Amino acid sequence: MTRLQINEVAPRDGLQIEADFVPTEAKIAFIDALSATGLARIEATSFTSPKAIPNLRDAEEVVRGIRRRPGVDITVLVPNLRGCERALACGVDEINLVMSASDSHGLANLRMTPKQSLERFTEILAATQDDRVFVNASLSTAFGCPFEGEVPESRVIELVERLLERGVQGVTLCDTTGMANPGQVARLCEAVQERWPATPFTLHFHNTRGMGLANALAAWQTGITRFDASLGGLGGCPYAPGATGNVCTEDLVHMFEQMGVETGVDLDALLAVSAGLPELVGHDTPGQVVKAGKADRRYPMPKR
Amino acid sequence: MTRLQINEVAPRDGLQIEADFVPTEAKIAFIDALSATGLARIEATSFTSPKAIPNLRDAEEVVRGIRRRPGVDITVLVPNLRGCERALACGVDEINLVMSASDSHGLANLRMTPKQSLERFTEILAATQDDRVFVNASLSTAFGCPFEGEVPESRVIELVERLLERGVQGVTLCDTTGMANPGQVARLCEAVQERWPATPFTLHFHNTRGMGLANALAAWQTGITRFDASLGGLGGCPYAPGATGNVCTEDLVHMFEQMGVETGVDLDALLAVSAGLPELVGHDTPGQVVKAGKADRRYPMPKR
Repeated sequence: MTRLQINEVAPRDGLQIEADFVPTEAKIAFIDALSATGLARIEATSFTSPKAIPNLRDAEEVVRGIRRRPGVDITVLVPNLRGCERALACGVDEINLVMSASDSHGLANLRMTPKQSLERFTEILAATQDDRVFVNASLSTAFGCPFEGEVPESRVIELVERLLERGVQGVTLCDTTGMANPGQVARLCEAVQERWPATPFTLHFHNTRGMGLANALAAWQTGITRFDASLGGLGGCPYAPGATGNVCTEDLVHMFEQMGVETGVDLDALLAVSAGLPELVGHDTPGQVVKAGKADRRYPMPKR
Repeated sequence: MTRLQINEVAPRDGLQIEADFVPTEAKIAFIDALSATGLARIEATSFTSPKAIPNLRDAEEVVRGIRRRPGVDITVLVPNLRGCERALACGVDEINLVMSASDSHGLANLRMTPKQSLERFTEILAATQDDRVFVNASLSTAFGCPFEGEVPESRVIELVERLLERGVQGVTLCDTTGMANPGQVARLCEAVQERWPATPFTLHFHNTRGMGLANALAAWQTGITRFDASLGGLGGCPYAPGATGNVCTEDLVHMFEQMGVETGVDLDALLAVSAGLPELVGHDTPGQVVKAGKADRRYPMPKR
């Protein structure tokens, strides 16, 4: 059975929407603690404009400050050519481009339609040609758009095709606002793997409607082994107030480890980092295993 | 595709552990609202001693007070012969016996080992012989015990055998404290359905470690169509403080309806009842769809 590859997105997807700026030193300590747990990949920050995302204005200092470990790839989100150049100058392992599958979400989130995003990617990909960096692209709203509704599977397939023909090496299919269901997930995962068996596909779920782990299970059943996840379930979707955020890393690792699927992650170490999140971000998190304990936790018999 | 049968357990499993007694009239209105949503079955109360569970001391008044609808079975928990006689006198459709698969949980929860429970069931089943009531038995800790740990599948199979040979007509396999994982669920569900293809098996999950819907999905994939669930995710496990409770009915119905699996439930009506829970029980609930809205919810485009 293939070992899972978990991409921890809390430092980027989580911290970017926190109310308060997390100090650079605390971010570095957080990422160092995460990379010691055996995660395959960490999305450390975003090389975006400090005005667009003030919380991640310290991207260079973070990437240059963290301890690099063999076997733990550092990936960063890159919105444009300038961001790509900044990221490459810091020596990251992977850059992650982002675009939406739906026009309205693209315009709301990136001020670009999918077509415009693809044009932008062409110039970014040209800039990476002399570098050994891995280029991934995240396709938002691949399972539905909070503004438009249904996003046809044929449209997603076509956009994946456009990405791969431009030289993107891996694609992340994102359920950006938690609209996916397990049946839909299985269908899309089967379709892309059948068409591009050699391309690494990653699945990115939100737990907005409680289906995060069920969707991950459905994806895994089709052969998907790469997942984005966010420690403590940090992150969220700004368009769905009151909703929980990304699928929680430790809950995902716990489920698969309980099923006997190897993740390479030291779950106890991961839970210890998660237990420190309320101090890091100043609030409780939606993670459940960190509160309930692992399934093998034993309780004393109650006294009668 | 077979329609699901959802057994709503909030009036019993949820309300029994609430800090405050919910007034009888409010319970009746709650159950009447639930039975108008198209649920197949409602576990309305428990005919236990008022001292053991003061919150459900009004069992007779509740069962006699609710409006009975064709197609909605009323089931009640029955711990002993006296409870059975009280329940039958009220004219319920089903009685639900309960026992543990593990000695320590049986002793902690019921003051009986599994062996003692089975003896008790023999006298209860004798009392139901002249009645047309359906007799179900819930097997707690079928996926693990919070005191003992692993409960071998062979032990669960053997206890199911003992129950069926005594005349029990249906069995509910309960993940009482949220220890089950989808792989284990699939294995046990396959085993019991292969051995007893004509017996109605119901699955009862808790969302303690976030796996509630993933486990329900895994069970459904093996052919299981009957699920216990609790509106708003009410209920919980007294041995795991801070943990969420039963799998949430509206989140379960939402997932399956999104997958195109018929539940017979009017989800909008169910969500309306769930929205009233904070007023009924005096606190927020862990249900997610009631907060985030259904997956087909559309948001206005943000203004820039």
